[in-house]
Amino acid sequence: MTASLTVRDLGEKRIIAEIIRPMCELADVPIGIGDDAAMLSVPAGKSLLVSTDKIPEDLLAVQIGLMDAFHHGRYLATVNISDIAAMGGEPAGLLVTLALPSDFSLQYLTDFYKGLIQGCSEWGIGIVGGDLGGGTTPCFSAVAVGFVEPAQVLRRNGASVGDQVFATGPIGGFNTALLYFIVAKPRGLALSSKDEEYLRCKLVHPIAQVRKGRLLAASGLCRSCMDITDGVARTLFELADCSRKGLAIREDLLPVHPATAEVAEFLGKPARDVVFGIGLDLELLGTIACPRDGLPASLRDELVVIGIVKEEQGNVLVAPDGERIPIPSQGWQHFAGSALDLVKASAPVTRDPAPR
Amino acid sequence: MTASLTVRDLGEKRIIAEIIRPMCELADVPIGIGDDAAMLSVPAGKSLLVSTDKIPEDLLAVQIGLMDAFHHGRYLATVNISDIAAMGGEPAGLLVTLALPSDFSLQYLTDFYKGLIQGCSEWGIGIVGGDLGGGTTPCFSAVAVGFVEPAQVLRRNGASVGDQVFATGPIGGFNTALLYFIVAKPRGLALSSKDEEYLRCKLVHPIAQVRKGRLLAASGLCRSCMDITDGVARTLFELADCSRKGLAIREDLLPVHPATAEVAEFLGKPARDVVFGIGLDLELLGTIACPRDGLPASLRDELVVIGIVKEEQGNVLVAPDGERIPIPSQGWQHFAGSALDLVKASAPVTRDPAPR
Repeated sequence: MTASLTVRDLGEKRIIAEIIRPMCELADVPIGIGDDAAMLSVPAGKSLLVSTDKIPEDLLAVQIGLMDAFHHGRYLATVNISDIAAMGGEPAGLLVTLALPSDFSLQYLTDFYKGLIQGCSEWGIGIVGGDLGGGTTPCFSAVAVGFVEPAQVLRRNGASVGDQVFATGPIGGFNTALLYFIVAKPRGLALSSKDEEYLRCKLVHPIAQVRKGRLLAASGLCRSCMDITDGVARTLFELADCSRKGLAIREDLLPVHPATAEVAEFLGKPARDVVFGIGLDLELLGTIACPRDGLPASLRDELVVIGIVKEEQGNVLVAPDGERIPIPSQGWQHFAGSALDLVKASAPVTRDPAPR
Repeated sequence: MTASLTVRDLGEKRIIAEIIRPMCELADVPIGIGDDAAMLSVPAGKSLLVSTDKIPEDLLAVQIGLMDAFHHGRYLATVNISDIAAMGGEPAGLLVTLALPSDFSLQYLTDFYKGLIQGCSEWGIGIVGGDLGGGTTPCFSAVAVGFVEPAQVLRRNGASVGDQVFATGPIGGFNTALLYFIVAKPRGLALSSKDEEYLRCKLVHPIAQVRKGRLLAASGLCRSCMDITDGVARTLFELADCSRKGLAIREDLLPVHPATAEVAEFLGKPARDVVFGIGLDLELLGTIACPRDGLPASLRDELVVIGIVKEEQGNVLVAPDGERIPIPSQGWQHFAGSALDLVKASAPVTRDPAPR
């Protein structure tokens, strides 16, 4: 395929017949692409989970040249599969809906689909359907389908006072990466190549926490759960708000990569401001009932406990010296302005000299 | 709400919390909007159907001022539910994914959701989830979920030689309406107010054929089926192509509204050219095995037989005088140009004088 071909050159029907369908044909479903709807059999005793997410047309990692078409497609698959993970489900299939301008590159579309299929295959599923249409600007969205035992499903709204607040892994890495690549690195901060690669992966290669979601569901102990897609502070706010409770998060327990502190220091702000910024970490945050004899072995090494559920609403960060700092409720919100502006605004343009 | 408010004024989270969620709360699902995914229980013995369709951002009926926000939303719901109908399924829920520019009217969005909910309630379902995000231009898409007995599902690819070709109702009305409102009426054709209203409904108030799809599925006789979304000729082509057969359609059997002949005559073209043009009639087209003693009573009054399946590929229209006219394979295709240009190009700019 020559690099200059656009979707107009082949047209909708030929793109589906000659590019998309052959790539997707291995999907293990009885009826998929080519019929009006996909048909999937549902395991006995399970309920259906279905979720849809679009990703911004101007994804920052694409804008700044860190993300290629393959990882762009994988990203769309992964953020959708992550919604199934956040409910404790097992993914079953993905549908992909794209609106593309007629001069959109066919090569980009093909590589995007390769990434979508990669993102699916990581969880043993395939692309089972979708829709391809025209648009003035690109619109990338997908639908994840999954199954779950209805009695085990993870919801957002069951937090109880005394529950432990957990994260499934490091948080704040996405926002650290944005601040590093967009602000700090251009101003001269040079992290080690290992740390830089770690941050690059946070932006371009997120991981859906399906396995940990399934463990949480099976444990019967998880009382609320969601994935981090709009920033850590916003996720903590929504989690607490759904249960009309408050969360007390211990700053010394936050699972934060050392690069976050380096970037924060360079920008002259506390590391917590970076952790609680915008960002799509995809780790699960939630609350869990803690049995008298501690978490079961199956969960002990999978979760990081970061705080506790309290009665009074309003989330607070408890600093090591005992100071209680309110955690803001904001995070990423559509229609509030561009993500790039938000990142730039969150970093002071010049560092204040340290007080003497 | 004042008419001048835009989505930027409220922001994503408040729009969902204050407008969308309250409107959707009656949806009868255990878990829906507010969690990461919707959960639906699956009736025993049934398989899942899931489909996604976006509608063009520049829908012609909106462009020409015939369709308001309410019917725009209802249209999005209906074309998605129609995909479940085409598979013989029963609808179970709808998810809605919108990308909107930040100056998009909140009033339009609210009315759009009222229409979505109306389109769902016609089939006893509700909106169970979705995603709302920003975009340079609007992108309207949805996901329909349904259930079907796996042994009864209607597919596209089972047509056998000798099957009867059926339609569930009148065809060509959508294209007739486009040609009337965009070309013929501005040039002076005045249909009766009843016919004009009929054509207006074809554009702005399509009906998903869920009931007839269910009857076809239950009959065990339907061998191929799809809904008309890209024009009658294109649908007949895809249906035949999926089974590697040909269809012989009898012109005298086509269920065509008298207004189609009037518009065609005014434009100086045969009625069949109007019937086979672009258009989203949403009637089902398919093929059915005809028992020796004729169609069962349950189907006899529900279908119009319009032709027969033949071995040789290539669809033909058999005129009343026996002439066999090839039916073109084209129809509406994304990336091929604007629908408005297509409609205008399909009508001669001046009528040829009738030969004397």
